[in-house]
Amino acid sequence: MSSSRSRGGGEARLRPAAADAVQGREAVDVPVALLGYGTVGSAVNRLLSENAEDIERATGHRFRVVRALVRDLERERDFLPDPSILTTDPAAILDDPDVALVAEVMGGLDPTGDHVLRALRSGTPVVSANKQLIARRGAELFAAASEAGVQLRFEASVCAAIPVIKVLRESLSFSRVHRILGIVNGTTNFILTQMEGGADYGEALAEAQRLGYAEADPTEDVNGADAAAKMAILATVAFGTRITIDDVGFSGIEEIVPVHLRAARELDMALRLVGTATLIDGRYDVRVQPCLVDRHHPLAAVEGPFNAVMLQGDAIREITLEGPGAGGIETASAVVSDMISVIGQAGTGFLSGDACWRELERLPFGDVRSPYYLHLEVDDRPGVLAHVARRLADHEVSVARLVQHEAGEGVAALHVVTHETRSGSLADALGAIGSLREVRGHVTALPVISDRGVPGLGWA
Amino acid sequence: MSSSRSRGGGEARLRPAAADAVQGREAVDVPVALLGYGTVGSAVNRLLSENAEDIERATGHRFRVVRALVRDLERERDFLPDPSILTTDPAAILDDPDVALVAEVMGGLDPTGDHVLRALRSGTPVVSANKQLIARRGAELFAAASEAGVQLRFEASVCAAIPVIKVLRESLSFSRVHRILGIVNGTTNFILTQMEGGADYGEALAEAQRLGYAEADPTEDVNGADAAAKMAILATVAFGTRITIDDVGFSGIEEIVPVHLRAARELDMALRLVGTATLIDGRYDVRVQPCLVDRHHPLAAVEGPFNAVMLQGDAIREITLEGPGAGGIETASAVVSDMISVIGQAGTGFLSGDACWRELERLPFGDVRSPYYLHLEVDDRPGVLAHVARRLADHEVSVARLVQHEAGEGVAALHVVTHETRSGSLADALGAIGSLREVRGHVTALPVISDRGVPGLGWA
Repeated sequence: MSSSRSRGGGEARLRPAAADAVQGREAVDVPVALLGYGTVGSAVNRLLSENAEDIERATGHRFRVVRALVRDLERERDFLPDPSILTTDPAAILDDPDVALVAEVMGGLDPTGDHVLRALRSGTPVVSANKQLIARRGAELFAAASEAGVQLRFEASVCAAIPVIKVLRESLSFSRVHRILGIVNGTTNFILTQMEGGADYGEALAEAQRLGYAEADPTEDVNGADAAAKMAILATVAFGTRITIDDVGFSGIEEIVPVHLRAARELDMALRLVGTATLIDGRYDVRVQPCLVDRHHPLAAVEGPFNAVMLQGDAIREITLEGPGAGGIETASAVVSDMISVIGQAGTGFLSGDACWRELERLPFGDVRSPYYLHLEVDDRPGVLAHVARRLADHEVSVARLVQHEAGEGVAALHVVTHETRSGSLADALGAIGSLREVRGHVTALPVISDRGVPGLGWA
Repeated sequence: MSSSRSRGGGEARLRPAAADAVQGREAVDVPVALLGYGTVGSAVNRLLSENAEDIERATGHRFRVVRALVRDLERERDFLPDPSILTTDPAAILDDPDVALVAEVMGGLDPTGDHVLRALRSGTPVVSANKQLIARRGAELFAAASEAGVQLRFEASVCAAIPVIKVLRESLSFSRVHRILGIVNGTTNFILTQMEGGADYGEALAEAQRLGYAEADPTEDVNGADAAAKMAILATVAFGTRITIDDVGFSGIEEIVPVHLRAARELDMALRLVGTATLIDGRYDVRVQPCLVDRHHPLAAVEGPFNAVMLQGDAIREITLEGPGAGGIETASAVVSDMISVIGQAGTGFLSGDACWRELERLPFGDVRSPYYLHLEVDDRPGVLAHVARRLADHEVSVARLVQHEAGEGVAALHVVTHETRSGSLADALGAIGSLREVRGHVTALPVISDRGVPGLGWA
C-alpha cells in the first residue's frame, strides 16, 4: 500500500488493485484489540468467530481478537474461548504495534477518550460504540484521526445496527443533507406506543423496564438527553461541523399525559419523541422534543422500541432507515460492520470477490408457507360454507378468521384468513373449491404478511 | 497501490495509508466515461459538476466526464457543458486506457451487456444503473469483475437512491440476511394507495400516468415483472447465489378490485405488491405478489410512489430502508454514490478527511419555524377563548385548528394547532397566555411534523 502514498496529483489508478486477498490467496490476518469486554465486547468476539468464514470470503481478511481490556479479570463473560486475551493494562493494547485495529466498547468518557486518542495518534484505526464520547469529543477525535491518516468509525454509537452513519458518510457524502428527523430513543418510543394503547406513563415505563427496554434509572432516556447525544452525532456528520450535545436543546416525555395522546389521535397524528437537525442558510438547529407527527408521515409508523432516521437532501429527496436501535447483538453487529469497512477502505479485496459465491437450489414453489387471505363469491344458501370449509380442511388449510357479506341478490362474499399453510396445499384446496358448482367466478388468494424479524413483534 | 498486490498472507497494514489525497495534496483526477447520456446520464454529469467541491473534499478525487456514448450526436441534452465529450463509437470509450471508470446508464441488454463485460475484462471498474442487465446477466458480470479484480457496482439498479445494495454488501455482509420483504415498484404502490382512497384501478392508473409515476405502457410495472427483476438482484446479493428474473414467480395487481381493499381495511391491513426473498434450509424462494400487510408492519406504512425494503437477519433483527424508488436525479445520485465508493474502496483518502471540515453557527433558538400543537385548560366561561386568541394574534401566531372539550366542572380544555410560526414568537405568546388569570396550570406546546423531503408529499 505504501506506493500509493507517493502519488500526488495525476490520474487515478483504479485498475486491478483491490482483489489480491480474495483471489485464492491466503487470508490476511487482522489482530484486533477490544477496549472493554462486556455484553457488546463479547458479542463482537462471538460474531467475529461465528462468521469468520463469511467475513474472510467477503474481505479476504481474518479478524482475530488478540487482547481485550477489562477491569476485572475474574468476572464471568458471555463468550470467551481464550481467557488469556484479557488484560487490565491499557498499554498492553495501546503500545502494541501488532494491534491492527482497536474497537472501543467500554463506554464512558474517562479514561476512554484518552485511550482512543492515543490509539489514533499512534496510527491505529478505531471503531467506537460510544455515543457519549463521540457526542462530546467527536470533533477532537475526528481531527486526530485525520491528522494520523487513519479511520475512526462509530456506526454503533447511533441506533445500533441501523447503518445511518455509513449511509450519511458514503452514500450521501455529496447529497447535501439539510434535514434529519429521528426517533432515536427506543425506550421513549416504546413508552409512547404503550400510552397510545391506553397505558399511563408509570405503567408504560414499568413495562419497558420489565422487558429490558428501559434501564433501572431511565432518566437519560425519558428526559431526552440520550436522544440529544445521538442527534449531535448525526448532525455533526451530516453538516460537517462540530455540534456537541451542549448545542442540542432537548426536552423529554415526562410531562406527556394521556390527554395529549387522545388529542393526537383525534387530530390523526401520532405522538413521538423526535430529534430534528436542520441546516438553514448556513446555520444549524438541533433539538429533541415530543412532537405530533402526521399519521401519513413515515415516523408515525415507528412503533415499540424501534428507531428510525429520515434524511432529507437535494438529490435523494428523503430516505428513511428503520430498525432496532439498541441491544447487545445489534450493537456488536454495527461494530463488526465498521471493522470490516475499515479493512475495505484500506484498499484490499473488499467487494471484489464474486457476489455469487455459491449455488443454491430453489425451494419448490408449493413448499413456501404463509397465511393467506381468500376472497370468493358463492351462492347464498345453506350448506355452501360447509362445502368450502370442507375442501380447505381436506388440504390441511386451517381458517383463522372468516367474514361473510351479502354481495348482491342470492350471492355471498366470503373473506377468509387462513393460518400459515403450504402454498401448494392451498393451491390444491383452491382447485377443489373452484370446481364447486356453488362458487362463482375466480377465487382470489393473497398472502398475509405480519411476521417481523424481531421475536415477539409478530401480530399474526 | 501496486505494492499491495505483492502481499499474500501476513498481517494487515491498516496504518497511515489512506489519507494521501486529502492531506493537502492535489486532488487525483478520475476520468469517467458514461455509456448513455439521457436523463440519468446528464443528471450524473450535473451532480458531478455541481458537487465537485464536496466530492473532492470527501474523497480527494476529482471526477471528470471525458466521454459519453450516445446514438444521436444532435439530440438535445439536459446538461452538456462540453458537447465534444459525445461519441457514437463504443471503442472510443472501451479501448481508451485513460478511462478510469465507466458508468453504464444506457439501459437495455444488447449491446449494453457486452460493453460492460468488455470494460470489466479490460480492468475498468463499472457502475451500472441497469436493472434488467443485472437481473439477467448479473452472475456472469460479477464473475468477470472478480476475475479482473475490479469493482462492479449497481446501487442504481434497485430502488434508485435507497442504498440497499451498499447496506447488504457492506454493512450486512456477515449478517446472514435470510429474508427480504420489499415494496420495490412505486407505480403499483401509488395505484394501490389511490385505490385505498377510493379510486378504482383505471382511475388510479390514469392518475399515476398523469403524475409521471407510470409509463405510457405500464405493463411491466403492473404485472409485477419490474419488481421481480429487482427482487432477483436483491436475493442474489443477499444470498450470494445466482438468481435471475426467471427464478422469480410473480403476479401483478391487474386483478385487484375495490372489494379486496375494503376487505383489507376491515381486517386492519393494507394491500401492497410485495416481493419476498426467503432462504430456508439452504434453498431459496423469491416471488412477487399482492399481499395483505398487517397495519403495524413497517411495509403497511409505505404510501404513494415510495419504495421500501426490509432486511431480516440474525444479528440485525430487521432493518427497513425507505425512499423514492425512481426518478432521474435519485437514480443519478445512486450512480454517483457508487462512483465515489469505487474510489473509496480502491484504497484512497475516502473517509479519512476530518468529518468536521467547517464551522457553522447555531441558529438562534427562537428563529426555528414549525406548526405547533397547544394544550391548555381554562375557566369555562365566555370571553376566555377570545383572551387566549388575542395573545396568540398579538405575537403573530395564527390558528389552523381549534377543538374545545369540557374538562371537568367549570373547566374547558383547548386543543390548538397553529400554522407555522417562529418558536420564539410562540414562546412569547405562551408567556402572555400563561399569565392570564383564566388559564389553569401549565400550557403544553408540541411541534407538529408533517413536512416531507419530496415536494407535494406534505400534509400540513
